[in-house]
Amino acid sequence: MRAVTTRPGVPGSLALAELPEPQPTADSLLVDGLAVGICGTDREIVRGEYGSPPAGAEVLVLGHESLGRVRHAPPGSGFSAGDLVAGVVRRPDPEPCGACAHGEFDMCRNGRYTERGIVGRDGYAAQVWSVAPAYAVKLSASLADVGVLVEPASVVAKAWEQVERIGARAWFEPRRVLVTGAGPIGLLAAMMGVQRGLDVHVVDQVTCGPKPVLTERLGASYHTAAVDAVMTELRPDVVIEATAAADVVWAVVGNTAPYGITCLTGVSSAGRQVPADLGALNRSLVLENDVIVGSVNANLRHYAAAAEALARAEPDWLSGLLTRRVPLADWQSAYEPHPEDIKVVLDLTGG
Amino acid sequence: MRAVTTRPGVPGSLALAELPEPQPTADSLLVDGLAVGICGTDREIVRGEYGSPPAGAEVLVLGHESLGRVRHAPPGSGFSAGDLVAGVVRRPDPEPCGACAHGEFDMCRNGRYTERGIVGRDGYAAQVWSVAPAYAVKLSASLADVGVLVEPASVVAKAWEQVERIGARAWFEPRRVLVTGAGPIGLLAAMMGVQRGLDVHVVDQVTCGPKPVLTERLGASYHTAAVDAVMTELRPDVVIEATAAADVVWAVVGNTAPYGITCLTGVSSAGRQVPADLGALNRSLVLENDVIVGSVNANLRHYAAAAEALARAEPDWLSGLLTRRVPLADWQSAYEPHPEDIKVVLDLTGG
Repeated sequence: MRAVTTRPGVPGSLALAELPEPQPTADSLLVDGLAVGICGTDREIVRGEYGSPPAGAEVLVLGHESLGRVRHAPPGSGFSAGDLVAGVVRRPDPEPCGACAHGEFDMCRNGRYTERGIVGRDGYAAQVWSVAPAYAVKLSASLADVGVLVEPASVVAKAWEQVERIGARAWFEPRRVLVTGAGPIGLLAAMMGVQRGLDVHVVDQVTCGPKPVLTERLGASYHTAAVDAVMTELRPDVVIEATAAADVVWAVVGNTAPYGITCLTGVSSAGRQVPADLGALNRSLVLENDVIVGSVNANLRHYAAAAEALARAEPDWLSGLLTRRVPLADWQSAYEPHPEDIKVVLDLTGG
Repeated sequence: MRAVTTRPGVPGSLALAELPEPQPTADSLLVDGLAVGICGTDREIVRGEYGSPPAGAEVLVLGHESLGRVRHAPPGSGFSAGDLVAGVVRRPDPEPCGACAHGEFDMCRNGRYTERGIVGRDGYAAQVWSVAPAYAVKLSASLADVGVLVEPASVVAKAWEQVERIGARAWFEPRRVLVTGAGPIGLLAAMMGVQRGLDVHVVDQVTCGPKPVLTERLGASYHTAAVDAVMTELRPDVVIEATAAADVVWAVVGNTAPYGITCLTGVSSAGRQVPADLGALNRSLVLENDVIVGSVNANLRHYAAAAEALARAEPDWLSGLLTRRVPLADWQSAYEPHPEDIKVVLDLTGG
């Protein structure tokens, strides 16, 4: 079988390798890989800036946004041959922290986890892969073309769960949400906001192409003004921040409606000092009982919520997020970003 | 009867006025005022920088940290003559927002509330006051000397509730808390942290006097190093920030343990720009699932929790927080801050 591999830390080591197929076992699903989605983390690994191979190996199989079809399932696993599945990314350490021991490995306290296709564990960018049933999520057959969105949607489902659980600390009936950034995370966040019956707004710099069209097809509003102006106009109850740009984060926090919740989902770069009135931010957060929450990764209940949310969405709208489907023959181009990309998918089924 | 009054907006208008006593009514408690605590908000009002009188009046009776003894209680009110009580500060607008309609006026969304002794409603710095039973809290008789601490303790009880409810969004077993600032809010926060069985640390610039002594009597640790160094050493799960100093806030946020919660309680001044690496903060909040929450004011359940927490504390330790008890004859000095003050109390019972 073929798999996309790299040597973490070694730029230029990306390869399409011929590897032995994993064998059926009594305690794992054997899955035919259909596709993987590609994101910024994959490209960071490809540039040699992030990631690590499995213990004792030099090469890492890439891919954490997975979609496959079960070829073999052990009896009693809850899965059957032919099921559409996605695999979970993170695995707790064999000596888990308290959160990991409770299945909340997305909230890991000691950092000793592995992540398939990223940190210390081979990923899903392979024509055949295996996964423990406890780390697989069954998808509706209607998601055969778009199921690679489950992993990014799980990150968004977690973000929404953070907002809702934190909001529930007192009376909370949010009406308006602003999503900053119309990439895959932002658009899926907008979709889940619309599914919650909220008045959803999206702000992004891009003025044409699929982003405004997809936003408006949701029934949400698309803005291209400066984020601080949009915040002043809208005063949203909830912000899902998905740009990771420090100036956008700064324009948002402290400028929501009272009891506002800002959920940060983007991993930004450090190292740039800008002038900021931190006293004003503190004052605003306190006097308005505001919250800023960071959210990363997802656990099984978020994957399940993501699969359900995608199954409720319009399949055609979801397909619109997949702006490039790259056949295996052109695999390298999948890892080269184009400015008009929303989500790039590598098809693993080609000969 | 005598009462401390001021004309909001008019510096130098502070006065000890002779006012008519309120009369008993069928739906309110008539209370003999025993004492009021004085805080930074009182001094802001005295300087003419904050506050407003009741509608149609020019003069505001000061006082929001109250303690009194019921002189007359309507039958069925749940109170009896002789009960020790504190009055609640905030009242919702007659046309309440959703939070106010649910009794959570501390989370008011529209800002149309009044506050006794602060905004649009006479306070408790009077020898006799009345209060609706629904806005009074009965105190243990053991709090006769220290019950003025109920209001600041209600603010702290709310802060702890925010931490616990936000923490409960996933697995949460915090062990270590850092309190920044050893004023009344900080020391009461430390007290409630010890009551929760946590490993409590307090950081403050003051190296001598009652602050380190009171901290250590709780079984907590007192630190005087720079806050960033203390954060690096301790990596607390929870921070209760009670200095309102922007540089302290900045040293804390993003530097907790993973899944850290920082509760901001101090109202700082705006207007000073300092260089800050906001990208690094965003990155840290996201990758560690951290939360920053602002908390202000308190509702009835927080007053009840405060009364209970104070009743469980050592009376002698609580007395130690009241570093100056000013008799009514010297009333003016109660409003002049001294550097060694923790909490100043004005005794209202003098002739």
